[in-house]
Amino acid sequence: LHVTILPGDGIGPEVTEAAERVLAVACEAAGIGLRTDHELFGGAAIDATGDPFPEKTRHACLTCDAVLLGAVGGPRWDEAAKTGGPRPEKGLLALRSAMGLFANLRPSRLFPGMEDASPLRPERVEGTDVLIVRELTGGVYFGEKTEGTEAASDLMPYSRAEVERVVRVAFEAARGRKKHLTSVDKANVLATSRLWRHAVEALAPDYPDVTVDHVLVDAMAMHLTTRPARFDVVVTENLFGDVLSDELSAVVGSIGLAASASLGEPGKPGVYEPIHGSAPDIAGQSAANPAGAILSAAMLLRHSGDAPEAAARIEAAVEAALGQGLRTRDLGGSASTEDFTKAVLAAL
Amino acid sequence: LHVTILPGDGIGPEVTEAAERVLAVACEAAGIGLRTDHELFGGAAIDATGDPFPEKTRHACLTCDAVLLGAVGGPRWDEAAKTGGPRPEKGLLALRSAMGLFANLRPSRLFPGMEDASPLRPERVEGTDVLIVRELTGGVYFGEKTEGTEAASDLMPYSRAEVERVVRVAFEAARGRKKHLTSVDKANVLATSRLWRHAVEALAPDYPDVTVDHVLVDAMAMHLTTRPARFDVVVTENLFGDVLSDELSAVVGSIGLAASASLGEPGKPGVYEPIHGSAPDIAGQSAANPAGAILSAAMLLRHSGDAPEAAARIEAAVEAALGQGLRTRDLGGSASTEDFTKAVLAAL
Ligand SMILES: CC(C)[C@H](C(=O)O)[C@@H](O)C(=O)O
Ligand SMILES: CC(C)[C@H](C(=O)O)[C@@H](O)C(=O)O
Repeated sequence: LHVTILPGDGIGPEVTEAAERVLAVACEAAGIGLRTDHELFGGAAIDATGDPFPEKTRHACLTCDAVLLGAVGGPRWDEAAKTGGPRPEKGLLALRSAMGLFANLRPSRLFPGMEDASPLRPERVEGTDVLIVRELTGGVYFGEKTEGTEAASDLMPYSRAEVERVVRVAFEAARGRKKHLTSVDKANVLATSRLWRHAVEALAPDYPDVTVDHVLVDAMAMHLTTRPARFDVVVTENLFGDVLSDELSAVVGSIGLAASASLGEPGKPGVYEPIHGSAPDIAGQSAANPAGAILSAAMLLRHSGDAPEAAARIEAAVEAALGQGLRTRDLGGSASTEDFTKAVLAAL
Repeated sequence: LHVTILPGDGIGPEVTEAAERVLAVACEAAGIGLRTDHELFGGAAIDATGDPFPEKTRHACLTCDAVLLGAVGGPRWDEAAKTGGPRPEKGLLALRSAMGLFANLRPSRLFPGMEDASPLRPERVEGTDVLIVRELTGGVYFGEKTEGTEAASDLMPYSRAEVERVVRVAFEAARGRKKHLTSVDKANVLATSRLWRHAVEALAPDYPDVTVDHVLVDAMAMHLTTRPARFDVVVTENLFGDVLSDELSAVVGSIGLAASASLGEPGKPGVYEPIHGSAPDIAGQSAANPAGAILSAAMLLRHSGDAPEAAARIEAAVEAALGQGLRTRDLGGSASTEDFTKAVLAAL
């Protein structure tokens, strides 16, 4: 298994280091030959080369089996961007686009014993286990932009084919779960949402075993906070998925626990990354929660390594570490990144 | 005080009827002469005239002092819209645009004794008192659209002037509150957000007494669920405001309690409406929570009636009714619309 690691910025290097150690042990145990290489990405790549997604990194990503990514961005580059400097986030969008990663899977479930970490009352959050499938290479992230300080615009375009391929991924995922798909849009206002809803309805007959409903994005933002446990698989466009998946990750305890897989056409390399950001304020202090990155490595084994058992073993080890009461700062505890990683390695 | 009432669809007529009774009593007590008229709007107007915002309604709205609006929309018109029928929501957008209602004020606070109605743990939600100022006549709601079932697009445009006028409203509001303004955008991706942020930063020196920070919309969706009490005034563009205000209303207990004021240039009539929808599933059963509409009537007295004391008396009466433990179905109780309205009238 050939994995390209993009540590990126802020806490990125710390959490990918933790995840790589776990990945190495899990591969070893499962008899999977692991080869890793590390490439520049994001702000770190800007500093070294002027480009957040340099050609060498691009080549490595396109030719490996899977990419493990930390996080990108920070105030230093935000400042520079105001006077025309390159943005680390541009590298992330370029990576997603270059690798054709149209389906972003963001699972959120309440880990056993983590009820106390949720901002919700236990009875509200209990049983929550939701997979958000976010469209990742279309919509307002990639539509034509007009920059300006007097007038600006962002175009949100979608084609039927772009919607269908990600919605199919969501239907398939629902089949392997509780067979309930919730499509989120803003069809009472947006033309792209009406196309989205139309496409979902047209595909539904191909999945007669899956129940489908449509919820408006504003209502969904409410439901995820009031009754998250009633959802199974949620599919939505890029921007809505960005917002709703962050909200949901907080609902089940901490964005520090949230992993993601970004997938393209079958057989192509996927990108695996925690959904938290680069958190520059805590970088370099061993205060970051490595669980999101470690669980992303598990998703890597499942989706790009064809090793679901090894993935499940990592997930069980993270659960065990949490079960021991080990909590990093984001969860109100004082365990370090290193403490948590060691506990996961021990549980493996 | 000349108020045009637009009952609209679903539970709209029930809640505006309740609000009108409360408004009448409050005006009587305050020595304010009240005149009301009722006009067709939304689905009801489509049924009667084919147009969700008929000319007669438009004229009434533009020539009164304030508009009290119920809610619009329902599955019947959604179905018809699929084959080209008019949408009730189009009437709402046309109303906002025709009246120049660029600033939508959506306050959410935890009413005393309502901790149990929040999905959040009491210690998380305690002290929450946030005013969301949502831009209401720009962005992706009003940009050019391409409709289609094979390809579609929505344009999200903003001009500097559009951003400035609503941001000024938010700065002024913050001055009268805790002097803390949070501007929400997605500046790491959207050109319009970069314009937005630039405009906020350029205005900040005019309000040296107000602390300003910038939060990305995905992070904000998280913060509103994890630590809502740390915000004071939040200003954001149309779509983000739609999503975040629904989320926040659920956080403090129920969207059934949430009121709003939509304001244009000073001296022009404002529109006051609960933020809940038409809830066709419970329409006609006296099961709707009239508090959102009643509190909207209070906002009407404050912003368009120059009667802050009368507004405060209505708000106190709603608090008293809630304090008596009276809860409509959305709050897990069994009080009817009528029960709740009577309790508010009695408390007045
Ligand atoms: C960093 C940013 C561009 C990115 C996004 O909005 O997609 C991030 O928030 C995410 O969700 O992966
Ligand atoms: C009905 C709909 C068009 C409207 C909106 O999105 O603005 C509603 O959700 C609201 O928030 O007032």
